[in-house]
Amino acid sequence: MGLFDGVLAAGEAAECVSDVAWLKALLDAEAALAGAQADVGRFDRSAADAIAAVCEPDRYDLDALGAAATSVGNPAAPLVRAITELLPETAARSVHLGATSQDIVDTAAMLVTRRAVTAVLADLAGACDLLAALAEEHRDTVQVGRTLSQQALPTTFGLVAAGWLTGLAESAAVVADLRFSVQLGGAVGTLASLGADGPAVLTAMARRLDLAEPTLPWHTDRGRIAAVAGALGRVCGSVGKIAGDVVLLAQTELGEVTESADGAGGSSTMPHKQNPIAAVLARAAAAQAPGLVATLLSGAPELQRGAGPWHAEWRPLTELLRDTGSAAHWLRTSVGRLRVDRDRMRSNVDLLGGALLAERVTTALASSVGRLAAHDAVTECVRAGGDLAERLAAHPTLRQHLTRDRAAELLDPTGYLGSAGEFVDRALAAYRKER
Amino acid sequence: MGLFDGVLAAGEAAECVSDVAWLKALLDAEAALAGAQADVGRFDRSAADAIAAVCEPDRYDLDALGAAATSVGNPAAPLVRAITELLPETAARSVHLGATSQDIVDTAAMLVTRRAVTAVLADLAGACDLLAALAEEHRDTVQVGRTLSQQALPTTFGLVAAGWLTGLAESAAVVADLRFSVQLGGAVGTLASLGADGPAVLTAMARRLDLAEPTLPWHTDRGRIAAVAGALGRVCGSVGKIAGDVVLLAQTELGEVTESADGAGGSSTMPHKQNPIAAVLARAAAAQAPGLVATLLSGAPELQRGAGPWHAEWRPLTELLRDTGSAAHWLRTSVGRLRVDRDRMRSNVDLLGGALLAERVTTALASSVGRLAAHDAVTECVRAGGDLAERLAAHPTLRQHLTRDRAAELLDPTGYLGSAGEFVDRALAAYRKER
Amino acid sequence: MGLFDGVLAAGEAAECVSDVAWLKALLDAEAALAGAQADVGRFDRSAADAIAAVCEPDRYDLDALGAAATSVGNPAAPLVRAITELLPETAARSVHLGATSQDIVDTAAMLVTRRAVTAVLADLAGACDLLAALAEEHRDTVQVGRTLSQQALPTTFGLVAAGWLTGLAESAAVVADLRFSVQLGGAVGTLASLGADGPAVLTAMARRLDLAEPTLPWHTDRGRIAAVAGALGRVCGSVGKIAGDVVLLAQTELGEVTESADGAGGSSTMPHKQNPIAAVLARAAAAQAPGLVATLLSGAPELQRGAGPWHAEWRPLTELLRDTGSAAHWLRTSVGRLRVDRDRMRSNVDLLGGALLAERVTTALASSVGRLAAHDAVTECVRAGGDLAERLAAHPTLRQHLTRDRAAELLDPTGYLGSAGEFVDRALAAYRKER
Amino acid sequence: MGLFDGVLAAGEAAECVSDVAWLKALLDAEAALAGAQADVGRFDRSAADAIAAVCEPDRYDLDALGAAATSVGNPAAPLVRAITELLPETAARSVHLGATSQDIVDTAAMLVTRRAVTAVLADLAGACDLLAALAEEHRDTVQVGRTLSQQALPTTFGLVAAGWLTGLAESAAVVADLRFSVQLGGAVGTLASLGADGPAVLTAMARRLDLAEPTLPWHTDRGRIAAVAGALGRVCGSVGKIAGDVVLLAQTELGEVTESADGAGGSSTMPHKQNPIAAVLARAAAAQAPGLVATLLSGAPELQRGAGPWHAEWRPLTELLRDTGSAAHWLRTSVGRLRVDRDRMRSNVDLLGGALLAERVTTALASSVGRLAAHDAVTECVRAGGDLAERLAAHPTLRQHLTRDRAAELLDPTGYLGSAGEFVDRALAAYRKER
Repeated sequence: MGLFDGVLAAGEAAECVSDVAWLKALLDAEAALAGAQADVGRFDRSAADAIAAVCEPDRYDLDALGAAATSVGNPAAPLVRAITELLPETAARSVHLGATSQDIVDTAAMLVTRRAVTAVLADLAGACDLLAALAEEHRDTVQVGRTLSQQALPTTFGLVAAGWLTGLAESAAVVADLRFSVQLGGAVGTLASLGADGPAVLTAMARRLDLAEPTLPWHTDRGRIAAVAGALGRVCGSVGKIAGDVVLLAQTELGEVTESADGAGGSSTMPHKQNPIAAVLARAAAAQAPGLVATLLSGAPELQRGAGPWHAEWRPLTELLRDTGSAAHWLRTSVGRLRVDRDRMRSNVDLLGGALLAERVTTALASSVGRLAAHDAVTECVRAGGDLAERLAAHPTLRQHLTRDRAAELLDPTGYLGSAGEFVDRALAAYRKER
Repeated sequence: MGLFDGVLAAGEAAECVSDVAWLKALLDAEAALAGAQADVGRFDRSAADAIAAVCEPDRYDLDALGAAATSVGNPAAPLVRAITELLPETAARSVHLGATSQDIVDTAAMLVTRRAVTAVLADLAGACDLLAALAEEHRDTVQVGRTLSQQALPTTFGLVAAGWLTGLAESAAVVADLRFSVQLGGAVGTLASLGADGPAVLTAMARRLDLAEPTLPWHTDRGRIAAVAGALGRVCGSVGKIAGDVVLLAQTELGEVTESADGAGGSSTMPHKQNPIAAVLARAAAAQAPGLVATLLSGAPELQRGAGPWHAEWRPLTELLRDTGSAAHWLRTSVGRLRVDRDRMRSNVDLLGGALLAERVTTALASSVGRLAAHDAVTECVRAGGDLAERLAAHPTLRQHLTRDRAAELLDPTGYLGSAGEFVDRALAAYRKER
Repeated sequence: MGLFDGVLAAGEAAECVSDVAWLKALLDAEAALAGAQADVGRFDRSAADAIAAVCEPDRYDLDALGAAATSVGNPAAPLVRAITELLPETAARSVHLGATSQDIVDTAAMLVTRRAVTAVLADLAGACDLLAALAEEHRDTVQVGRTLSQQALPTTFGLVAAGWLTGLAESAAVVADLRFSVQLGGAVGTLASLGADGPAVLTAMARRLDLAEPTLPWHTDRGRIAAVAGALGRVCGSVGKIAGDVVLLAQTELGEVTESADGAGGSSTMPHKQNPIAAVLARAAAAQAPGLVATLLSGAPELQRGAGPWHAEWRPLTELLRDTGSAAHWLRTSVGRLRVDRDRMRSNVDLLGGALLAERVTTALASSVGRLAAHDAVTECVRAGGDLAERLAAHPTLRQHLTRDRAAELLDPTGYLGSAGEFVDRALAAYRKER
Repeated sequence: MGLFDGVLAAGEAAECVSDVAWLKALLDAEAALAGAQADVGRFDRSAADAIAAVCEPDRYDLDALGAAATSVGNPAAPLVRAITELLPETAARSVHLGATSQDIVDTAAMLVTRRAVTAVLADLAGACDLLAALAEEHRDTVQVGRTLSQQALPTTFGLVAAGWLTGLAESAAVVADLRFSVQLGGAVGTLASLGADGPAVLTAMARRLDLAEPTLPWHTDRGRIAAVAGALGRVCGSVGKIAGDVVLLAQTELGEVTESADGAGGSSTMPHKQNPIAAVLARAAAAQAPGLVATLLSGAPELQRGAGPWHAEWRPLTELLRDTGSAAHWLRTSVGRLRVDRDRMRSNVDLLGGALLAERVTTALASSVGRLAAHDAVTECVRAGGDLAERLAAHPTLRQHLTRDRAAELLDPTGYLGSAGEFVDRALAAYRKER
């Protein structure tokens, strides 16, 4: 836990991409490689077992490995040396056989990603459940819909929450669909030193790690990394949308939602403030994703190994996983803290004294007096201020077609919600079916 | 066709995202909306037919629409006005009913994207077929595998081409799996002015355009745009990898491939030059994608309409589609022009006089003399230069275990290709199955 | 003017980066190159004059040039051919002498950039002048300062405008400081075919185009492009900040500013709406810059010519210039349309009934009753609601130290503006000095 | 030192942006704020001294601060509490007076950046000195110039190194010109709680930290961050260019440069390999910059405090500084390790048997036989192969104008280097003048 990590690297994903987690994944890859060779009879099970036995992170000195990595440019090479030193000659000879450093680092990247993604998905699922509950509870809570910063027409907070839910759940589903593959190709992708056993070892290694088996080694095909980047970038977009809306709705002047939490978000010097801090931090995390995605999409590894593009993936991948984890954590936290103020929602709906429903009145009167005339009359009444229903019922153009009661009915926001409720129901049904 | 478009916006996709194509898509959306309302009985079929009849791009003045768009900030609003002006009163009243500008622009964006993506996929399929043929033809053509700029071990050009094929085909498959949805929500997503008919109109409009029906309006959920961006970004990554390799293999000093084309790529003043210009332009296109993807992932639309983020999508989406189209076109062109020089491939393999196979000799002798001793002896022989097989057979540590013939056999690159051939077969089988 | 250009490519910069503008710049470069060679006596003045005479854009067919560009990958090569065809043999021989295509395209890029940047700076200067006037007029207009979406403390709209002004003016100054250099190096940067005259021709060409002379050819040093990208990216950041604030302040519930314009921003169906559309479009333009900047920073041209990275610059550079021009235009438009509602600003200040000044009361009483006790007492009063001055004066901990009048004085926002006025004066003085 | 930091976060900059370094900078800001208030007489010097005395990083628990930061969203707030707890009542009351958390974090960001940038500049200066020495030593070393992957014309390695030097030095100069400003504005930028003393305290605080004094508080004007981002992005572009060239020139088939280092870059299993690992890692670092720059340019802080955009800066700024430090370190290391092989450079020049000089021969004969005829004849001879001088002298079109000796002279690459030497001299002179 560093100075900024509580804020910027919150949630379980951070631990899944730590240096220790990477080391564990590298060791898992080496152990699985040895096990796979024993599986296909390339050497004794005892050698593989001996290797597996020393593939425990706490037997290695992270800092020393990191320092030794500079001479070859990756941590797998010094790790292989360190593993070998812990083993008797026979087993030592069987370590890393047939593999190149990239095989181990790429396979470890898949393991690290899978673990981090699992943590991300848990927070996303938590957030979705909370959103589903909000959508259900507020299915019929009237709220102003706002476009380009202006009050536009009534909607419901249930529909807003259902929209958040659908966007987030659909993005999460893309992440959940990611498949992770083992990488094993040897120095140039031929598995030359495994003779005819290459594909068999590949199959066995994939099975041991519960990873997919690729058609051929993917050391210079980074589509899998691009897929992870794209999926996480999409999730962060969904998070950023929701968190941004929370921040807007929490504005003092709107006051429709509050993040309520003991201590968090308060200001020591300004007691009237209740900052939606979890939403703020979710936005901050979401905002960092697109740049990281761009970096991960940029690499075009040269011929049989990226001379820079490969090494340039490790940090942005780690950061993007951690960052998406933080985004998911803070979003779940924010939604969990949300207090919805139905009264403020309603008073905001009434702020313009009915002008919000002008479109409806115009539409209702269009067939009687003509669209243009209706539009002009309604606009005139809105601009005049005062009791809008009364003005409408008194307007020369409209009065023959509109009683004050009918005008008031037309101006009632709860009667002009269209399919909001049905869309909420559809969203909840779709979410529950998927889950 | 502008000054740079032949170079930077090549292929069919460019036309699919032109202003005329956008206009057509906007009109298709309006026509479908009217048709859908007639389908569910909201107004007469004749009104819908009249609307459809004027929804032809050549009836509108693009420049005038573009100029008029500035007052509301999007081209749909002035288009609606222009459509209305072409119609008699009854039909005019039925134009755009229930919709907001974003419904039309978003639906049009999906149509434009689908059309452009179809063009991109055609070029990708063409490139894949050519790559598959190369992989098959050169299944056993020996080539040097190069890692971090250095010759490493033998591979085959067939495996290289199979790797290109697999990466490209898998990226193309993601694009082919994209689903496009209609957007219809009205001003704030409730479809208020359609009363209870909202979902039915939505269904009918989707069916008319052969678009998917979303669970609820997605005007402020940009996951669909993110999915398109991610998929195209991945394709460009695959293109960039292949094109980059072509450029490297075409270097004068390597000379393993040439782009052969009448006129193209030659230099008027330097007759010895044959620039791999199609690959160069494919790389140039690929390099522009990640930044555009980042922009498309960045938008978090506010509440019921993005106050900037929405408008910020149109240009990067258009550019990314055009750019990916150009990348696909130039890649297909490059691969189609490729002449493979087996002799240069072979002479490059032999450049180091056998040192390439040092790993193999070491491995072969490890069990007899110990890995370390073998390694040191082989390294010594490699560094000494001269006929490597002879030196190995004469080395004090090795001579008891190695005849010159056996040494020569071990140094034969065609005998150390591991599973290269099998991987080619797997790649071809997977590609043919998918296709 | 295309379908989207009125909205997305507004302002004068768009024309400065059009295909015709690029063609003109390419021709200017060729004419200057010929003129420079005559200047140093490499060939007759008459040949240079003949070349200059045909270097007029309307003598060339843009589309044909664009189409011909595909075989070499850039438009300079076919342009040279086209120029030559318009000239008699003697002059024809002198066209493009000593240069390579990149020399012409890079020099043209500098000319195009300079012209577009001039247009951008004019709009920025216009916006700055308007902001300075706002800052001056509203130097003492009290407004709520808002942090993390919550009302925090009073400030003035003058200080807000002064902050906008300072940020924008400082960013514009970076753009104004950009220096543009001629590029001339020949095929590999040696100017070999100019013999010993290379540097003299370089100097003369720079002088003719009023461009700086570089130390050496910069065809593979893209620092100049990076500088342009960074400066424009910064400007867009400043624009995005201001436009974003306008959108927030224009929200119906805040209502502190309005974009007032005949027709623009209104809604045909919702007469109560007045969308801050110019600010929305400024934000949209600003949001597209970072991705384009990233692309322009990404290129690492290989050896003596970028094999893709160079070609990948043209579109994003053009787009970034056009986009920044649109951002500057719309910002200037938005600020020019701004109507400031002092009354709404004041009523928003009073919204929390004095709680905004809680910090001040606490500080004032800290020395008498201790900070913690003061803080707790003030917080208690704020939470209790009602007339805050009365509550404070009646609170057991505070009443001995605070009359109701003194409490009211402490709660007066106009008395707690710190250095706001002085900061406005500093900003105006700094701006006027710079201008 | 973590698992990847030796590779990805090399050089001194990494330590300058560590959590401890950030903590120190936060404490320096608090100490300077207190000192500044004593300077202007707002409280006793003794209180400021007491505060300064406890502003030592090792008195604080980083992890505890990080954990406590989550409730307010930044580490400054809990740090103020922790400082206060170490002090007697009187001094405690004077901690953080008048400031808001962002004042402290922004000021600390400037301090951290200045320290890291100093480290970056040291490595860049080291690399520049090495490049200058290479340019001087190889002023006249002939090398092939390559464009679009093809041999084009002769150049010198001196010119190549001079181009690298100029690009890098000019980028470094932009970084060296960065100015860093103190930030102090209080909750909303008015310095309200400092009464009339605001500007005086600002001035004193700036002087104490040797930072510039801004015109007004810049909490919501991120131009300074954009300037840092742009400058570092440009440096990484220059590094990426040079490192990319080193990787290309080090290719086995070119062999013109080698990174020579005890142990580093070698392969345990492939003794013939000498990977240019420092250049590879410099490229990897450079490739990560554009995405981080884009993120830093993206933030548009809302009103008086960024509700996400501000928090989203800390990680990318830290990463970009560390990454640029790593890029500079590895570039310096790579250039320091460089062994230049003049013989390989020369033999590569001769690879095409003189065809490289075809342009020169054509130009020399153009006036005698006409440009087109000369071009066709030369092209014919080049394509025919064999001794080019002999063929040229025997060609029907040319033989009357060209002896074999003159042909050989024209084909001598050392005679066709144009201004290469002069450009090297200019670059060295410019560099030495700047330094």
